[in-house]
Amino acid sequence: MEVGAPDYLAGERQTAEFDVESMKVTWAGSRHALEVSDRMARLVASDPVFRKDNRVMLSRKELFKNTLRKAAHAWKRIVELRLTEEEASRVRFFVDEPAFTDLHWGMFVPAIKGQGTEEQQQKWLPLAYKMQIIGCYAQTELGHGSNVQGLETTATFDPKTDEFIIHSPTLTSSKWWPGGLGKVSTHAVAYARLIVDGQEHGVHGFIVQLRSLDDHMPLPGITVGDIGMKFGSGAYNSMDNGVLRFDNVRIPRDQMLMRVLQVTREGKVIQSDVPRQLIYGTMVFVRQTIVADASCALSRAVCIATRYSAVRRQFGSQNGGPETQVIDYKTQQSRLFPLLASAYAFRFVSEWLKSLYTDVTEKLQRGEFSTLPEAHACTAGLKSITTSATADAIEECRKLCGGHGYLANSGLPELFAVYVPACTYEGDNTVLLLQVARFLVKTVSQLGSGKVPVGTTAYMGRARHLIQCKSNVQSAEDWLNPQVVVEAFEARSLRMSVACAENLAKFPNPEEGFAQLAADLVEAAAAHCQLIVVTKFFEKLQQDIPGKGVKKQLQILSSVYALYILHKHLGDFLSTGSITPKQGALANDQLRSLYSKIRPNAVALVDAFNYTDHYLSSVLGRYDGNVYPTLYEEAWKDPLNDSVVPDGYQEYIRPLLKQQIRNARL
Amino acid sequence: MEVGAPDYLAGERQTAEFDVESMKVTWAGSRHALEVSDRMARLVASDPVFRKDNRVMLSRKELFKNTLRKAAHAWKRIVELRLTEEEASRVRFFVDEPAFTDLHWGMFVPAIKGQGTEEQQQKWLPLAYKMQIIGCYAQTELGHGSNVQGLETTATFDPKTDEFIIHSPTLTSSKWWPGGLGKVSTHAVAYARLIVDGQEHGVHGFIVQLRSLDDHMPLPGITVGDIGMKFGSGAYNSMDNGVLRFDNVRIPRDQMLMRVLQVTREGKVIQSDVPRQLIYGTMVFVRQTIVADASCALSRAVCIATRYSAVRRQFGSQNGGPETQVIDYKTQQSRLFPLLASAYAFRFVSEWLKSLYTDVTEKLQRGEFSTLPEAHACTAGLKSITTSATADAIEECRKLCGGHGYLANSGLPELFAVYVPACTYEGDNTVLLLQVARFLVKTVSQLGSGKVPVGTTAYMGRARHLIQCKSNVQSAEDWLNPQVVVEAFEARSLRMSVACAENLAKFPNPEEGFAQLAADLVEAAAAHCQLIVVTKFFEKLQQDIPGKGVKKQLQILSSVYALYILHKHLGDFLSTGSITPKQGALANDQLRSLYSKIRPNAVALVDAFNYTDHYLSSVLGRYDGNVYPTLYEEAWKDPLNDSVVPDGYQEYIRPLLKQQIRNARL
Ligand SMILES: Cc1cc2nc3c(=O)[nH]c(=O)nc-3n(C[C@H](O)[C@H](O)[C@H](O)COP(=O)(O)OP(=O)(O)OC[C@H]3O[C@@H](n4cnc5c(N)ncnc54)[C@H](O)[C@@H]3O)c2cc1C
Ligand SMILES: Cc1cc2nc3c(=O)[nH]c(=O)nc-3n(C[C@H](O)[C@H](O)[C@H](O)COP(=O)(O)OP(=O)(O)OC[C@H]3O[C@@H](n4cnc5c(N)ncnc54)[C@H](O)[C@@H]3O)c2cc1C
Ligand SMILES: [Ca+2]
Repeated sequence: MEVGAPDYLAGERQTAEFDVESMKVTWAGSRHALEVSDRMARLVASDPVFRKDNRVMLSRKELFKNTLRKAAHAWKRIVELRLTEEEASRVRFFVDEPAFTDLHWGMFVPAIKGQGTEEQQQKWLPLAYKMQIIGCYAQTELGHGSNVQGLETTATFDPKTDEFIIHSPTLTSSKWWPGGLGKVSTHAVAYARLIVDGQEHGVHGFIVQLRSLDDHMPLPGITVGDIGMKFGSGAYNSMDNGVLRFDNVRIPRDQMLMRVLQVTREGKVIQSDVPRQLIYGTMVFVRQTIVADASCALSRAVCIATRYSAVRRQFGSQNGGPETQVIDYKTQQSRLFPLLASAYAFRFVSEWLKSLYTDVTEKLQRGEFSTLPEAHACTAGLKSITTSATADAIEECRKLCGGHGYLANSGLPELFAVYVPACTYEGDNTVLLLQVARFLVKTVSQLGSGKVPVGTTAYMGRARHLIQCKSNVQSAEDWLNPQVVVEAFEARSLRMSVACAENLAKFPNPEEGFAQLAADLVEAAAAHCQLIVVTKFFEKLQQDIPGKGVKKQLQILSSVYALYILHKHLGDFLSTGSITPKQGALANDQLRSLYSKIRPNAVALVDAFNYTDHYLSSVLGRYDGNVYPTLYEEAWKDPLNDSVVPDGYQEYIRPLLKQQIRNARL
Repeated sequence: MEVGAPDYLAGERQTAEFDVESMKVTWAGSRHALEVSDRMARLVASDPVFRKDNRVMLSRKELFKNTLRKAAHAWKRIVELRLTEEEASRVRFFVDEPAFTDLHWGMFVPAIKGQGTEEQQQKWLPLAYKMQIIGCYAQTELGHGSNVQGLETTATFDPKTDEFIIHSPTLTSSKWWPGGLGKVSTHAVAYARLIVDGQEHGVHGFIVQLRSLDDHMPLPGITVGDIGMKFGSGAYNSMDNGVLRFDNVRIPRDQMLMRVLQVTREGKVIQSDVPRQLIYGTMVFVRQTIVADASCALSRAVCIATRYSAVRRQFGSQNGGPETQVIDYKTQQSRLFPLLASAYAFRFVSEWLKSLYTDVTEKLQRGEFSTLPEAHACTAGLKSITTSATADAIEECRKLCGGHGYLANSGLPELFAVYVPACTYEGDNTVLLLQVARFLVKTVSQLGSGKVPVGTTAYMGRARHLIQCKSNVQSAEDWLNPQVVVEAFEARSLRMSVACAENLAKFPNPEEGFAQLAADLVEAAAAHCQLIVVTKFFEKLQQDIPGKGVKKQLQILSSVYALYILHKHLGDFLSTGSITPKQGALANDQLRSLYSKIRPNAVALVDAFNYTDHYLSSVLGRYDGNVYPTLYEEAWKDPLNDSVVPDGYQEYIRPLLKQQIRNARL
């Protein structure tokens, strides 16, 4: 905000009952994280190269070129200012535009780190770190996505030349979707079926050079291009998701990533002693980032909708006074505040996932693999439910802004368009929940055999209790007790999983049963994952959280999140008998009074995200609430307003108006 | 489909158990409607001016100009071919691009018809019919939307000159959003607070000329422009939603629409003997159209997702054979088939709404107003739930297409972007449900006084029974009985309304109670509206429906719709005790087996919508299922593929690759 400019939301900020600066620290994770984030946000916001208000007006080509410009400039600043990796990643975050660098740093480098041998890492990583090569992650094909084992691209070992021949045998085997592939990447980690001596050895990664480092032309045998426009106007269209065909492209043998499986000079295929489970580590890492991103996208949408709901007034004017702020309507609150609570919930669960990753990494180093399937199922499930909820929530926030939410400059349409693929990439959300369900059913089936469930499934060890316990909620107050809430969620989740297991047992063929009951299984998996989010939120509150009133607010938000989920999935809770209808009604009463408690803190709770106006890029979500004059000014910038009489008037409007119609039947 | 071209979905079409041509008639409403629709669809599809595959690549200005061109061309064809009004409206429908003509025909003309005196109609309608003037509907302002009574624009009568002075006193009083206003309209029906002799007389409509008919320049005192980019790339950006300010613009007194209220030469304000309820007629009409549009948009999305789900294969390959069609997965079915059923459900409820409109119109002519509030509540509610469900469903269909659904040429992103404002315009969906709730609570409160509820609330007359009845479902089969289903829905809806009424009674101040319980009230209203949809679907099946197997399919779909809603809102049914958990589980079992019955008919059921590939504008939804080669070909048309080395390489990529980095900390 400019110094001295009026703050139309000052009144809202005064009613806050907690210390916003302390909440910022809690949201950011640490004072250090807040400081870095704040500094990088300002760095980006103050640099004219990074302006983004013109995004939706650019043509595809201009948009893309502008992204190249930003990426180059960001890199320049990162190098000049000698930024740390943490700082650099915040810069990319605040530049806030999908770009080839996301895949280079986020997938290409990690793939080499995770799947390359020491030698390979030493050769390729320095080049990648200095961006002397630019890489992408080329797995998906036109005809094959979720089922990686179904990929058609082949990598055939040629013992004569000590090379692999990478080939696209069919149209459907064309690589399709990899970000950064279409126009920028010089290299790819491409996935292909390994064929040695006529034998197939599954799908593996290969480093393939795509373009000349001299003139950027595709190398012989490589056909590469962009796959075209995607959802939205700006959004993901700044990314060159690409198509790629290999016509018998030869690469040296040592460009197969060989950490797990090796092909020797002689054409022997050798399993290395590195455990395959290692890949779980990378997956936990990547999905943790996605959950963190969910909390960012969601909090951003909620920030916009909350501020605008405090600015927007509609109905209820008394004696010619101002109308009611729409944030005061209970319907608005019951749609908006659960999303605010979800943003905090996802934030803390992503924080916990970070620690899970550290834990998993340590265990891997110690050669302990037993808890990995649980960690893997848990991250898969959390990725699924947080991204689905966030996608829906962004659109709900847009609707909460009424007509003006439909304007591109509300920031919400493009946020939605750029966010939704998170439900699909890194595992389709339904496919992921099916994986979780498989794990849960297995866990349940092993309960009898004395196998103790670990981590987030530990509660299943108390199956005997949970299957028959009754909630002793007697008043709306009782629902503020985390233990009571958690037990209801545990009972619901356990009973759904057990019911699935029982129904599965009725099928002679378990796979057939799994296929038939898939929809129920997905619901059971979601219930389990919601329990995790609720639990981790409550666990966070066990910690020391400094700052006046901060913990109190988080307690309210944690209850809102839990009771909102309970209300939304009331059918589950009632049909499993985990709570009674009366208790459900009490939860709803409690929820209503919690909304009233949030109300005076709402704007401060979104201020705590510490987003700059640049990052928000929303006229409706402006920090100062000065919405209407800005909307009005912005309108005139549309190219359509270049002239008062539109281009096309002479050809298409005037003739219409001047036409003499004689014989129409209208 | 081209003659002789292979049909990759032929196998799917062979498994259909009903006559598709008959189903087309049922979907269209009549053989005549199908014939007209089919003929107009082909007319549009075969005309190169109406191509739309390039939409998302155009800049705003090009897009808009292209729309002007299409609108002019459509009009030319309409006149040349002497099309009927029905035919003309189908042409506009299939041109499938928001344009100023939508508002001219859909709002400007009806406003004059509905609110203008005979004299005014005779003067203005011929001009409008021949498009010698182009009009828009200017109600919403920058600061005022839902609350029409809060509009700030003034229309002050000047007895000296016998004129009204139309004025925008504040920035927030700027008209904002009217379609067709920004660049095209020569006239508007503008709404303003009538002020006569210093006295306010509420908000009324005024015909105001905005632009010169000679050179299209805004008239003195008029500031007008486009409000800028909206959601999506093509989508609604072909429309010039506009901003408009009046600086003491004078119009003759007879340009106030005076059917209901008149201002005389002497400045007397006279209520005419035309009943105010007349406006209900127009609202029922407009909302009926919106419900019909919902069924169109939904069926279009479902058609795309269904065909693609039959083409797409993922996992489950056995011995190297083809993978499983994703439509065979129960999760896919449980997400997709309810939407297919919803498309049919909304179709039939919109058909019924059409008859309701006729009924309402007749009653109005006979001076019978007693049933109007019920008709009004019912249409408001149906507008709300069908548009909300459709918006969500389009995005679900997009997700059902996996990664490829995210491509613009899947057709789904732009369909979503163009559709979602239907949740906001013609009444924000939450505000509408609150109106329905108010009506329901009133109906419940009057039950004691012997007032007999009518129309869609008639069931409330059986409150005594419904409040305590128990569903006697004992097997999954029982759920196929419409009476059983309807009773469960009636019990749920009635009990929710009664519970609201009882809770409201606890508040000393009813308005305060209404405000506090708003979220519950909205849920009760939605339950009531879902009951209407279910009932009207079943009622449709009472009719004679010709064609082999057609009725059977519709029976399956009606059960799917009902049981899907029941499953989705299980919490309502259980907490009101309308069904037991066991009965809920049986409903779910029935649902699963209904999905299996739909499966072999799925593609034929979407073929019955009779959409041309032009209208669908989706590579994934092509009639012939030839998806992959088309996706591949389309990709190369993106402007980014104009050159192999992208624009910006020299400036931004090459320097990055060639840079020598010494001092980075990364
Ligand atoms: C913006 C974006 C960026 C991407 N970036 C990259 C990248 O950089 N590199 C890369 O390699 N790929 C990338 N991808 C591809 C992405 O990883 C895939 O789209 C994703 O894995 C989903 O696979 P799919 O598209 O094949 O979906 P499909 O699997 O075809 O899904 C279609 C439908 O089938 C259902 N389905 C599939 N299998 C099953 C099953 N077994 N049981 C039940 N239902 C099932 C799904 O739930 C879904 O509803 C990107 C995609 C997008 C949209
Ligand atoms: C694409 C598009 C085309 C349009 N075309 C036209 C046109 O041609 N002519 C025209 O005049 N207008 C047009 N409009 C404007 C449209 O009619 C309004 O946007 C609509 O009426 C909603 O009003 P609003 O924007 O003021 O929303 P608001 O009322 O400001 O809604 C904001 C939020 O407040 C909530 N809210 C508001 N009132 C209450 C209440 N009493 N209780 C509880 N919650 C409440 C809403 O539920 C919503 O969540 C168009 C809008 C769009 C998006
Ligand atoms: Ca564009």
